[in-house]
Amino acid sequence: MKKILFLFAVCLLSLNPVIAQELQSPNSKLKMKFSVTEDGTPVYKLSYKDKEVIKSSKLGFDLKDEKDLLDGFKIAETSTNSVNTTWKPVWGEESTIKNNYNELVVSLVQEETQRKLDIVFRLFNDGLGFRYIFPQQENLGHFVIKEERSQFAMTGDHTAFWIPGDYDTQEYDYTKSKLSEIRGKMEESITANISQTSFSNTGVQTSLMLKTDEGLYINLHEAALIDYATMHLNLDDEKMIFESWLTPDSQGDKGYLIAPAKTPWRTIIVSDDATDILASKLTYNLNEPSKIDDTSWIKPMKYIGVWWEMITGKSSWNYTDEYKAVKLGETDFEKAKPNGKHAANTEHVKEYIDFASEHGFGGVLVEGWNIGWEDWFGHSKDYVFDFVTPYPDFDVEELQKYAASKDVELIMHHETSSSVRNYERHLDTAYKFMNKYGYNAVKSGYVGDILPRGENHYSQWLVNHYQYALEKAAEHKIMINAHEAVRPTGIARTYPNLIGNESARGTEYQAFGGSKPNHVTVLPFTRLIGGPMDYTPGIFEMDISKLNPDNNSHVNSTLANQLALYVTMYSPLQMAADLPEHYMMFLDAFQFIKDVAIDWDKSIYLEAEPGDYITVARNAKNSNNWFVGNVNGNEARTATVKFDFLEKGKNYIATVYADAPDAHYKENPQAYEIKKYRVNSKSKLSQRSAPGGGFAISIIEAEKSEVKDLKKL
Amino acid sequence: MKKILFLFAVCLLSLNPVIAQELQSPNSKLKMKFSVTEDGTPVYKLSYKDKEVIKSSKLGFDLKDEKDLLDGFKIAETSTNSVNTTWKPVWGEESTIKNNYNELVVSLVQEETQRKLDIVFRLFNDGLGFRYIFPQQENLGHFVIKEERSQFAMTGDHTAFWIPGDYDTQEYDYTKSKLSEIRGKMEESITANISQTSFSNTGVQTSLMLKTDEGLYINLHEAALIDYATMHLNLDDEKMIFESWLTPDSQGDKGYLIAPAKTPWRTIIVSDDATDILASKLTYNLNEPSKIDDTSWIKPMKYIGVWWEMITGKSSWNYTDEYKAVKLGETDFEKAKPNGKHAANTEHVKEYIDFASEHGFGGVLVEGWNIGWEDWFGHSKDYVFDFVTPYPDFDVEELQKYAASKDVELIMHHETSSSVRNYERHLDTAYKFMNKYGYNAVKSGYVGDILPRGENHYSQWLVNHYQYALEKAAEHKIMINAHEAVRPTGIARTYPNLIGNESARGTEYQAFGGSKPNHVTVLPFTRLIGGPMDYTPGIFEMDISKLNPDNNSHVNSTLANQLALYVTMYSPLQMAADLPEHYMMFLDAFQFIKDVAIDWDKSIYLEAEPGDYITVARNAKNSNNWFVGNVNGNEARTATVKFDFLEKGKNYIATVYADAPDAHYKENPQAYEIKKYRVNSKSKLSQRSAPGGGFAISIIEAEKSEVKDLKKL
Repeated sequence: MKKILFLFAVCLLSLNPVIAQELQSPNSKLKMKFSVTEDGTPVYKLSYKDKEVIKSSKLGFDLKDEKDLLDGFKIAETSTNSVNTTWKPVWGEESTIKNNYNELVVSLVQEETQRKLDIVFRLFNDGLGFRYIFPQQENLGHFVIKEERSQFAMTGDHTAFWIPGDYDTQEYDYTKSKLSEIRGKMEESITANISQTSFSNTGVQTSLMLKTDEGLYINLHEAALIDYATMHLNLDDEKMIFESWLTPDSQGDKGYLIAPAKTPWRTIIVSDDATDILASKLTYNLNEPSKIDDTSWIKPMKYIGVWWEMITGKSSWNYTDEYKAVKLGETDFEKAKPNGKHAANTEHVKEYIDFASEHGFGGVLVEGWNIGWEDWFGHSKDYVFDFVTPYPDFDVEELQKYAASKDVELIMHHETSSSVRNYERHLDTAYKFMNKYGYNAVKSGYVGDILPRGENHYSQWLVNHYQYALEKAAEHKIMINAHEAVRPTGIARTYPNLIGNESARGTEYQAFGGSKPNHVTVLPFTRLIGGPMDYTPGIFEMDISKLNPDNNSHVNSTLANQLALYVTMYSPLQMAADLPEHYMMFLDAFQFIKDVAIDWDKSIYLEAEPGDYITVARNAKNSNNWFVGNVNGNEARTATVKFDFLEKGKNYIATVYADAPDAHYKENPQAYEIKKYRVNSKSKLSQRSAPGGGFAISIIEAEKSEVKDLKKL
Repeated sequence: MKKILFLFAVCLLSLNPVIAQELQSPNSKLKMKFSVTEDGTPVYKLSYKDKEVIKSSKLGFDLKDEKDLLDGFKIAETSTNSVNTTWKPVWGEESTIKNNYNELVVSLVQEETQRKLDIVFRLFNDGLGFRYIFPQQENLGHFVIKEERSQFAMTGDHTAFWIPGDYDTQEYDYTKSKLSEIRGKMEESITANISQTSFSNTGVQTSLMLKTDEGLYINLHEAALIDYATMHLNLDDEKMIFESWLTPDSQGDKGYLIAPAKTPWRTIIVSDDATDILASKLTYNLNEPSKIDDTSWIKPMKYIGVWWEMITGKSSWNYTDEYKAVKLGETDFEKAKPNGKHAANTEHVKEYIDFASEHGFGGVLVEGWNIGWEDWFGHSKDYVFDFVTPYPDFDVEELQKYAASKDVELIMHHETSSSVRNYERHLDTAYKFMNKYGYNAVKSGYVGDILPRGENHYSQWLVNHYQYALEKAAEHKIMINAHEAVRPTGIARTYPNLIGNESARGTEYQAFGGSKPNHVTVLPFTRLIGGPMDYTPGIFEMDISKLNPDNNSHVNSTLANQLALYVTMYSPLQMAADLPEHYMMFLDAFQFIKDVAIDWDKSIYLEAEPGDYITVARNAKNSNNWFVGNVNGNEARTATVKFDFLEKGKNYIATVYADAPDAHYKENPQAYEIKKYRVNSKSKLSQRSAPGGGFAISIIEAEKSEVKDLKKL
């Protein structure tokens, strides 16, 4: 590491000379230039293959009750550094991840206030990360951020895949539009949600996926969001400049910091090949290594659950319909009249355990097992759940024994209803309860408006809470799958017990009116940039009215598309979300879900275009087997898969689960074909996917004798 | 209990006939009349000895987003009940308390909405309590209170002893004025405080002490404040009607309730003798019996503490002056430069332990022992303390051993800085730490603005928090003395581990500029109505500049007045707040503090006038010894004490600690005289008290031979 100490000329007329610092990516394709303008404003710009990606963009902060940190800066010192290492994640798309970047640290001093501000830039081959550091110093201790003013100046009217900026929900369908069209399409894009707070006609969420007219792919997000407010991006659609827009607290303030402090990283992933965006590990690389020493208890898992039947309205979470309101500790459920629809009952859960055991699923999630679901949301209720008291028809001990005898783990469910104080009060007891009864993973939920009232789902207060719950869980050796919590930013590298998040529009919306057919061709470019999603795929019955006559929702996906999701939507936690009885009707297709791996040595994105298609091949961990997934957008398309990722000279059985020729996400979603082939590294497959369709392939290494009767591909 | 079911006449023209219900106190002196007006508004009025005390006053609620509960009611049912029992508090002014009242329950139905509301009235010989009950019902589940609308209509322009209504502080000096003068005196009465939020020019706090021109004493307060917002009183000073004004949450709402629910009791204590107000146990009687089964660990205690030296500025809580800000877990105190003023160091604490042991004090409080005091308030800091990590110069284990060897208990200190989430997160660990190191009591503090930001000290959210901390403490067998927490409302009956509260202007203000000389003649009529106060008396050095040359504050009290406070300010927890070296200078006077009892069989208020004087005699528990205290207001006055409370035929030694003839709170506060007399039940003493003065008497049973040389009184 070399340090460059600037010697400032004693020149009163030119206190802030424009001094530029350049940084190159290891492969020299990306170049970042940092400088300080005439008036002392820090600015940066970024180019890719000598083409501008980010035009000159300002950096800084509006502060509360003190002078802003926007201008009047000079460079006091800079230093550079290069890193080229690898690390091994506990779970992931790759068993080894390369971390290779060049770093520039710029130490600024605001001359009038003598306050110090450092900006750190890390330039990887796949993009840029930068963060602010407030060093320990005389003139800055506690401070309050009114707004972060990080700019991302676009070079033109790019195409964006965006969801409306919102302080309380991330569960919108994506809109594809020109930047200039965002304002006009905002209103229609803000669909109803239980808790939602939008803030600007040009405000969008990250991770934001962009494509320039020249075919450059740009992804904007953040990494290592710890004890800081979540960033949105607000567009100045005249100048085409995005600027950071943090999530405020109940008082409208955006961050309480104490120097020394650092912000999350702001990330810009860039490539002219869309598959590079999907393959990027930049977000993880900008997070700290694991802080959990013994990670042996963290295990990827496929699971089923008592869930879809409630989501569709076939069954209920609540035990009784008698009560207008429930008060824990006062309401007597033993005396309540059961509504006859309560799914989380001992007998029924045993059926799920039997099915899981028979078909090789490691886990069974049970929602609605604990008292309080009669009035669980919409009332700003403080003491909504205690997380340890089951309904009278749910026998915790017996089910735990039964599950263990079948080699299945029950997955705990903690719906907090966003009553966060209540959850924190019960957290320790709830985790101990899990430890006692052998639950190793919990799905947590944050439905509804936040308590403390006035707080938002993605403010510093809440970000701090999700982290608290995660770290406490690690102490108890518990894995977390947090729904409605803040979108991930690669924190799973540091706390690999964060095995899942929802934080986007999941499969449940297919029972709430449906999602766009190409939704799953966008998610890996946006939501998945920060970490895995518990998308809960595997729906085989697309007509929801067959489960609940009052629900006319339709799942906008073919059955083959549902299978492909187990490969395209990488997650160490994969649910088979449909009812066992539906899987029993399609056991041949279900075989893929049973076979597909859950952890990987290697992933190769074969082709991708956001909103249109993604095809990926993954090598199962410690195995020669591969799985391929293709998801397709709104138009039918034929993909070509070259099997050159396979080990040369070896033979494999490829089982292709594909849309039938007449398949269609709306008209004929359950039409699929299953074909077996003999393949090797020279094989090639042309496979058509229907609108909203896709295909899945399992590729299992085989002896020559096993494949001789199969058709060669 | 007799139930009266009303048979409503089928009369369309008169759906809401005015139906009056009358209730009398057991001694028939108080009469309460309840009725429903023509438009269905519930009203009550109260008389004492057939003189009106409360004129017809409305009852009800403004609700959010639904029809108010103010009018349109009819009486569906009423029931009455009489109770006459006694109970034994764990500690108190009396070892047996009489609970004798007549009760009326009125069940109302709002005809338009069919919502039910019950009002319960309990009439004691010393006053009225009433509360609202929202029964379990079809048409009312979750609801939000915009405002409670309970009126207390005064009969005239009474004299009031009041402090400004405020959502965040109770630490004002009292103003004595006519009700009509409140508005004009409000601004001058709102003195600066670290956290304060006033709301109305005629808003005042309870307990509010009133006196009519006819010499009737009226006290307004509340009892059993549980999971509800604290009540203030706002005066309509044209009509002279007080109305409830609840403390709002961060959103401006005043209460989130779920039927079945009940409000705290609203209390009106009435007498033509001021001593009856002081002796009233109505507030405790309206609370639930103890919920702690084994109370053997709850013990009254006298204590000293490492405290006054920081309050006066002689020493510091913080260990170093180096840091602008501290981050727990990051700031390294081992490397910090000590400021040389840190009082909570092992050696110094040992001196306190030695002093406590030598003079028979049970406890030593130590503030400033744990890291974080460098920037503990004023910054809205979230993670301000962890409550378990000592400064490098404070050896927890050694001190605990040392204290135990001297038969002294160390008292824990938890300053939360009002960062309530942080405190709740650490509460369990902090209490376990106390259990481990043998701390049985904790002084907790809530200085500064509340976190969650936007919340107020006395809103439902915070009331709920104080209760949570109290109940958790009971689980850990820990006694609580909460400072800056909400004013007590008799909850110590239910949770007798609440051995103290500050919740008013305590002795510390004598080092912050001083309090009014007659302050302690008001507090027992106001703040102490709800429970004991950790007033921290016993200051012997009134000139604070002798401790800290930069502090010119003066303690507005004579030394004899300080002694009297141990009797007049009843508390199971009494501090000797001054420095040991000051006690060493006045060992003869200090003897009273050493001798005075801390728990009582009986208390007799001999004479009292709010703002002017209080004289009380108390019988030490399980003993024949008595202690008398007199505190005096702004003018010199001679009190006459008849010793007829003593057991007949027995002899006692009375040691009288009184103001010297030339004593004066300002000019000559340390002038006192100590005289010993022989007394029996026929004795009588005329004793002058200086302005801001008083006297204290210890009356110890003695053999005839022991008293023969003493002057007879």
